[in-house]
Formats: sequence, structure tokens, C-alpha cells
Amino acid sequence: MDFSQQRSKLLDETKKAVSEAVSPDIVISQTLHSIDELASCANTLAKRLRDWHGYFLPELERAISDHEVYARLIVEKSYAELTSTYVVGQPMGAELSSTDEVAVSSLARQVLELFRLRQSFIHYLEAVMSSYCKNFSTLAGTTIAARLLSGAGSLRRLAMLPSSTIQLLGAEKALFRHIKTGGKSPKHGFIISHQLLAQTPASQRGKVARSLADKLSLCAKLDFFSGEFKADVYKADLERKFLKK
Amino acid sequence: MDFSQQRSKLLDETKKAVSEAVSPDIVISQTLHSIDELASCANTLAKRLRDWHGYFLPELERAISDHEVYARLIVEKSYAELTSTYVVGQPMGAELSSTDEVAVSSLARQVLELFRLRQSFIHYLEAVMSSYCKNFSTLAGTTIAARLLSGAGSLRRLAMLPSSTIQLLGAEKALFRHIKTGGKSPKHGFIISHQLLAQTPASQRGKVARSLADKLSLCAKLDFFSGEFKADVYKADLERKFLKK
Repeated sequence: MDFSQQRSKLLDETKKAVSEAVSPDIVISQTLHSIDELASCANTLAKRLRDWHGYFLPELERAISDHEVYARLIVEKSYAELTSTYVVGQPMGAELSSTDEVAVSSLARQVLELFRLRQSFIHYLEAVMSSYCKNFSTLAGTTIAARLLSGAGSLRRLAMLPSSTIQLLGAEKALFRHIKTGGKSPKHGFIISHQLLAQTPASQRGKVARSLADKLSLCAKLDFFSGEFKADVYKADLERKFLKK
Repeated sequence: MDFSQQRSKLLDETKKAVSEAVSPDIVISQTLHSIDELASCANTLAKRLRDWHGYFLPELERAISDHEVYARLIVEKSYAELTSTYVVGQPMGAELSSTDEVAVSSLARQVLELFRLRQSFIHYLEAVMSSYCKNFSTLAGTTIAARLLSGAGSLRRLAMLPSSTIQLLGAEKALFRHIKTGGKSPKHGFIISHQLLAQTPASQRGKVARSLADKLSLCAKLDFFSGEFKADVYKADLERKFLKK
């Protein structure tokens, strides 16, 4: 085997190794980032829609605060219908011409599309997570589980992390501020939005976060080393312990 | 007429005045901002698409640098087709499963939609501008004209501005830095992207920008006071004067 043959064989093997390095972790992290970016685009365009349509029907803009509902109303109902429903007495907006109405409602349609795609990505993420790490995503909830996974880099690394690191994943800024300047130490990272913590008074949160992270760490190990499904037992334990009142 | 009658009459009159204050300037400025925001959303999501799809077909990601073309290829061709066209020898990406393909191509479709809507808003802006300020938008070009108009606030204000202000609209930061710290004075604001300036060597740009702003100011006055159409004459004059070589 001469040099050029050997070179092309090694190149092929490298390419194969690169292609095999792609794991569900990457799909999960990409989907999670897509969901965040779709939300931010949808909100930017929804604010623009409010600003624009608000010149022609300020009454509607003030009545509906939810972006998605607002966009759906503009797509589904004509300007004349909306005016007759929401305006009482003298209208405060300018007259919307029919060509302008086409432009504004195409923007509203785009906003709805972005919200819809975001929702379908959330379902997709749920499906991927529940087949890849059922214990972990059941206990943490899909979005928090995906954030933790993407923060750790992979399920493998997550399973190797001590529970105190899982507790603080996502609070790196506060942690390093604590280490450098001696400020208050953070008590929770991404898990702060977990329903168990949301229902706990602030004074108890450090304790609950520690227990939750402990069980999450067990779940990650169960998932990575293909153990049985125990997340529901852990969840019930935690709820019994902390939500008794 | 008692007090409450008078109050409701005054309220109605105020509402009427508010509704009459809406002018095409507002539509132009909203459309312009929508175009910018649509472009920024399309780019964010296109980068995410590249990142994601690139794990499965890095060869395509490297071959196609245009976001829109890239997204269209993913929407129009199946993963198998793309692989057979772009991969030579051992593939470097992972295998894309069919459920993953659905998710990625729905993101690609969204990117295309955003680009398409942006394009249709550009046409819409052109139509609005050419009926509202034909002279000004012909000489400046639709996008620059819209930026100047939105920077000035209204066509009325634009028609009242001295040409030196029009020359520097959009360069406020550099102008105030010049005034405060004595740095270099800016020579052009939004008009820097005008084709006449793009074709001029840097040493001549101040001179050309001054002449262009001068004629733009005339155009704005012609448009606001409903004068005749003279932008083509001015444009030919400027081109004869500065593009002779």
C-alpha cells in the first residue's frame, strides 16, 4: 500500500469517526436553540405588528395583550369586522386601505407561523427526549432537561457530573462572581423554573434545589447506563417531602 | 349643552385629530422596520439551519454560502438526493433520520418564507414610495429614501430640512462625536449606500455627497409641495458631472 492509498484510507476513517460522533445530544441542543430563536423572532415581529396595526386600530392593540391571539385575530378577521367589534364611538385609528391590510395581515400570518413552528418543535423535542433520557426529562420537565443537557454538553457528561454541578448549571455567572468577589452564592441554575421550586417559598429554595439536583443526577445516571424507569417514584418522593402543606 | 355632553364632544374631536395624524410616513417607516427585522430573523434562523443541517451534510453547508439558496435546496430536495449530489467518497455527516428530516426542512421552509415576505415588503415599499414621493425615491433609491424619510420623521419635515442635514441623516453618532471631541466630521449618513457614492473614490465622496444631498433636498421640496417630476433630470446631471471617467 503506497503513501497516497494510505492517506485516503486514513481520511475515510477520520470522516467516519466524525460522522459517528454525532449523537442525539446534538439534535436536542439544536432543537432547543431553534425553539428559543423562533420565540425571539416571533416576539420581535409581533411587536412590529402591534406598532403598525396599532396606528389603524389602537382599540384592539390595547384590548389584547397576548401576541399570538392578537396575530390570529388580524389573520382571521377582516379590518371591518375587527373595527365593528372593538371600536366604541368615534374610532381613534386611521383608515386602513385594502393594500395596507394585505401587507399587515401577511406580517400577522408570519408571526403565527413562527409561533406554530415553535410549538411543533417543542413536541418534537419532547419525543426525542423521552426516548433518549426518559427518567431525566420526566423529572426535570422537557425544557429544563434540554437546557441542562445542552449546558453539560452530552448525556454522558451529565451522568458523570456531581449533583451540585447540576444544581448550578446555568448559574455560572453568579457562581464565578461568588468565587471572585465573595458575593452571595447561587442556589440554583436552570432548575429555578422547575415547578417544585416555583411552589416553594424563597427561604426554602436552596434546600429543595439541592434535593432536586440530587435526584436529577440519579436520573441522568439511570438513563445513561440504561437503567429502569424510576423518575415517577423520585418525583412523588420529592413532592411528598416538600409540598406537604 | 351640559358638561358631560361637552366632554364627550371634545373627546371625539381629539380622537378624530389623532386618527387624522396618521400619514403615509408612518406606513413607510413601519414597512422599512419590518424589512430590517425580517432580514435579521431570516439570518438568525438560517444560521441555526446551517448549524443543525451541517451535522448531517457538512459538504452542502460548505458548498453553498447563500442562505436563501441553501434553505431552498433543503426544502426542494430530499436528504438522499442532496447526499448523492454533494458527497464525494466517504460522507462526513451523520445519518439524518426521516423524523429529523421533517423538523429540519420545516425550519428551512420558515427561513424561505421570511425571505419571501421581506421581498414582497420591498415591492410594497416601492409602490407606496413612488406614489407618495416620486422625485425623492427615484433619486435616492427606495431603501435609502425610506431610511431618510423615517430618520426625518415625515416628508413635511424632510422638505424643511437644509441639504446639509439630509447629507448627514443617519450619521448622528459620528456627528456628535465630532462636535464633542473634535474627531473627524462625517461626510455622509444613510446616503453612503447610494450607487453614485459607491462608484466614487473615497477622496471625492464628500463632494459628491454634498451635491447629492443638495438635489435630494430639492426633490423632497418638489414632492411635498406637489411639484412636477424632475428627479430624472437631476439624476442625469449628477451622473454626467461625477461619473464622466
